[in-house]
Amino acid sequence: MSGAGTGTADIAELLRARIRDIPDYPQPGIVFKDITPLLADGPAFAATVAEMAVGHADVDKVAGIEARGFILAAPVAYALNAGFVPVRKQGKLPAATYAQSYALEYGTATLEVHTDAFAPGERVLIVDDVLATGGTAAATAELVRRCGATLDGIVVLLELDFLQGRAKLPELPVRALLTV
Amino acid sequence: MSGAGTGTADIAELLRARIRDIPDYPQPGIVFKDITPLLADGPAFAATVAEMAVGHADVDKVAGIEARGFILAAPVAYALNAGFVPVRKQGKLPAATYAQSYALEYGTATLEVHTDAFAPGERVLIVDDVLATGGTAAATAELVRRCGATLDGIVVLLELDFLQGRAKLPELPVRALLTV
Repeated sequence: MSGAGTGTADIAELLRARIRDIPDYPQPGIVFKDITPLLADGPAFAATVAEMAVGHADVDKVAGIEARGFILAAPVAYALNAGFVPVRKQGKLPAATYAQSYALEYGTATLEVHTDAFAPGERVLIVDDVLATGGTAAATAELVRRCGATLDGIVVLLELDFLQGRAKLPELPVRALLTV
Repeated sequence: MSGAGTGTADIAELLRARIRDIPDYPQPGIVFKDITPLLADGPAFAATVAEMAVGHADVDKVAGIEARGFILAAPVAYALNAGFVPVRKQGKLPAATYAQSYALEYGTATLEVHTDAFAPGERVLIVDDVLATGGTAAATAELVRRCGATLDGIVVLLELDFLQGRAKLPELPVRALLTV
């Protein structure tokens, strides 16, 4: 579903102009895509959030993945009058949780949600900044399903196509505002 | 300025009903104020964000403090058509930063912003979930000032009055939607 939505060409142009490349971060040979100039531009930030929300007027909740994912998922929830659910790193949530581990380049990491974060039958949209290998998105999707809720899809600002993250998200609509 | 804004009594009631106490978290004897039930309720979340934004229509940027602060500060920025600036833990931002340390119960911690996060003369609102000892808020205020920007004030969801955080924020308007 890449490219769906209104004004997508304009948004992609806006994102290209406001996302900056930071060479050799976090390690030599990696070019980091820094979205902070986009976030800092009020009208560009608002246009981005509004575009991410397109097509999801019926969702009950938006899930955001710690920490950068919160920055986009929370305003998308607000724009949709939906609830916001933080998907957090292990040990950060105070009540009972479900946990889901995923593979990193070396080792694993774990994400958690409260067991009462989603009710059975609720429609949930996952919003994140970047779709890279798809590990965090797939773990989040699994946590939503474990609560008995229904996934409406995943929306990301930026998809790193060469990492083939979509392959980890079968049967789930994935929309990226910009693909590189 | 506690108590300013429209519908404050209603909002305080809403917050009381949607913030739950988690005893003995993160350690025995501490009662943690868990805001996730409030966030998960779409209309309550939207009303909270709208109330936090009241009186700040002229700000250029909203600063949010990692990680829970992002969840409220980003939608407040969206509601105000303002830019959003993440104030992050040390080592998380990819470009050049200013750093500011603050005291913890044992030792210190450090917050950072990009050196180009705020331009001289810009008006900045700091938004966070909880005002406790005031350490992170005071460090954030100092980072905003170091960029040459002007502080419009601080808005928090919840103020823990007995920790006297306001004492660390002289000459700065602090507004809390709920004080306990």
